[in-house]
Amino acid sequence: MFKQLSSVSESSRTLLEMCSPVMRIENISLNRAQGRTLSRNIVSPTDLPTFDRAAMDGYAVRAEDTRGASSLSPIYLEIESETGEGRCTPVRTGMPVGGDANAVVMKEDAILRGSQVEISAEVHPNRNLARKGEDIKAGELVFEKGHVLRPPDIALMASLGLREAEVWQMPKVAIIPTGSELVPSLSGQNLEPGQAYETNGLMSKLYVQTWGGNPQRHAIVEDEPSKVREAILSNRDADLILLSGGTSVGEKDYVPPVVKELGELIVHGVRLTPGKPTALGLIEKTPVICLPGYSVAALAALFLFARPLIKKLAHLQDESFKITAKLTRKIASRPGYLTFARVVLEDEKATPIMTTGAGILSSVARSKGYVLIPEEIEGLEAGDSVEVTLF
Amino acid sequence: MFKQLSSVSESSRTLLEMCSPVMRIENISLNRAQGRTLSRNIVSPTDLPTFDRAAMDGYAVRAEDTRGASSLSPIYLEIESETGEGRCTPVRTGMPVGGDANAVVMKEDAILRGSQVEISAEVHPNRNLARKGEDIKAGELVFEKGHVLRPPDIALMASLGLREAEVWQMPKVAIIPTGSELVPSLSGQNLEPGQAYETNGLMSKLYVQTWGGNPQRHAIVEDEPSKVREAILSNRDADLILLSGGTSVGEKDYVPPVVKELGELIVHGVRLTPGKPTALGLIEKTPVICLPGYSVAALAALFLFARPLIKKLAHLQDESFKITAKLTRKIASRPGYLTFARVVLEDEKATPIMTTGAGILSSVARSKGYVLIPEEIEGLEAGDSVEVTLF
Repeated sequence: MFKQLSSVSESSRTLLEMCSPVMRIENISLNRAQGRTLSRNIVSPTDLPTFDRAAMDGYAVRAEDTRGASSLSPIYLEIESETGEGRCTPVRTGMPVGGDANAVVMKEDAILRGSQVEISAEVHPNRNLARKGEDIKAGELVFEKGHVLRPPDIALMASLGLREAEVWQMPKVAIIPTGSELVPSLSGQNLEPGQAYETNGLMSKLYVQTWGGNPQRHAIVEDEPSKVREAILSNRDADLILLSGGTSVGEKDYVPPVVKELGELIVHGVRLTPGKPTALGLIEKTPVICLPGYSVAALAALFLFARPLIKKLAHLQDESFKITAKLTRKIASRPGYLTFARVVLEDEKATPIMTTGAGILSSVARSKGYVLIPEEIEGLEAGDSVEVTLF
Repeated sequence: MFKQLSSVSESSRTLLEMCSPVMRIENISLNRAQGRTLSRNIVSPTDLPTFDRAAMDGYAVRAEDTRGASSLSPIYLEIESETGEGRCTPVRTGMPVGGDANAVVMKEDAILRGSQVEISAEVHPNRNLARKGEDIKAGELVFEKGHVLRPPDIALMASLGLREAEVWQMPKVAIIPTGSELVPSLSGQNLEPGQAYETNGLMSKLYVQTWGGNPQRHAIVEDEPSKVREAILSNRDADLILLSGGTSVGEKDYVPPVVKELGELIVHGVRLTPGKPTALGLIEKTPVICLPGYSVAALAALFLFARPLIKKLAHLQDESFKITAKLTRKIASRPGYLTFARVVLEDEKATPIMTTGAGILSSVARSKGYVLIPEEIEGLEAGDSVEVTLF
């Protein structure tokens, strides 16, 4: 039995407040920079465009030479010869416009007549021209520190001649599965009676990557305090330690006591269902989240505790896309507990999956996401509007 | 000048209807299967749990042996000895429950007294027990063909002893940038006057990956029909060809004519701003999208034409998360054109970026996403509700 259960939001906030974003930096190729967070301002090393550029196909001219031109009274300009002389130059979109030309006459308004061009429309200075530095000027701030790079941002940086970005390192997240009955999954090893494949580590690894962390998987640790201790100590370089299993209050649930021995056990037991045996701690400034062994409970703890923390460590906003839907039937919940209810989603209608088993991953397989039912509520009714967070 | 401009939605739909999802399959490790689409049903090879499992710490018993037990009149059961005899067995959560035991008495309701256990609560059959096959039965359908794998799905498959998934191959998307003035970006090469770094290819590559495709980047092709033809023909193994640049109607805009020569040019010129010079074609069943050379126009064409097609080829739903926001000021738009307006997003308020330049990537850098203004509307007013698609 847990002596005292903590509120999910309070305990998550407590842990978040104790941790700071990772301040190590690295330079990475722009090719691999998508989703990464800039650790310094980007100031343009160059003007963009880097030269005065034609914005249309046509003829580069001095605008004043076209004054008064119209289809009724066209103006004739000598075309540039091989010696470089002349008063207009044929240009294509994107080509440089040089000399004292300051506008482009569209080819629709110009007819080539021998060595001359008949111009039937007046242009103003800068017409059909992209001026050097018009988009970005050398020395201008392009992105602020903290900006998360998206494909067009990377394209823009590359167009400025940059090749790398200085970004914050991704937080290292150690993943330590515990349980003497566990066998590595994807190993091809057969199960003996009483054994099960270890899958919380695999699931954690995939979510850590999705949320912007760099997972470091540790081998399965037996249910023995000295081995759990050893595993934690060998991951002290991590920015976050996720332990899985052994978090309840059974005789062999050594994990939270070991955390307490090595550092501080902040919370053990939360008002979350499934997910009650979750524990949170801090070992020499490294946050530790002890995930319950049961898969669905581990999943709930990952979303509610690990995600916001990984995002914070990675300098990322914890934006999650929620879909608003109407419940097709009621969901009962345990008053006093935050309930992590799995739902099927169809045409903006959410149907709760009827199951209470914390180990029943098939309930997640059939669902699209989860709905949280607050502690103070006894359940939700059919027709209630809910926000679904997708798995 | 374009002779006739096509509607964006109609031309996109026409191209989509001409293309089918990629039917090549591959087996990949579950480690790398996130986001991939199953190409066959997954049927469980085993029961899950694979054995009758204790769901609580306590004593495995035959439920009938506890009949009538209460704290006032406890029942005493002999504990299992080393010879295997006895009527109850100590178990921990997750451990197998064997023999003819069919329930678990929680340790809170049991006290060990010498070789006997004092039991103070009656249990019903299956109480505190996860029965073999209770979650999933051998032979049961776990995931249907077409399901897109998420981390808990991968964990579930691993818990069934599976190691790989049979999935649809990602569509191969050839990316061919054209333009004699272009220099490879990230190359470290300096620009000569009139040159620019090629960045549409880099941006396309990143979005193709994001949307579930497998990008194949081709070197920059000069503005010469024979070289464009050669580049297209060398990518005939692709499921989609993205060309960039040379799509307007200038003298050197060879790209759409080459598509027409090699196959069918379905559309050239669309009512999209920026993005008008977009062209769509089909060469021996391979769809071809010709992106305009200007970056923002290319971005608009990527989102409106390439994304839905890549998603379809990859057997993925084209779900995009949109954020509903109120406009802080009006956006003017060109009637008769679908307008791709970039907006800044703050506190559910969208502010349009004032620019019309199709090449102005800095407008994208400053914005969070885009709003589409339909053809038939002349603009949107301050206070109007809009849906923002994030970059």
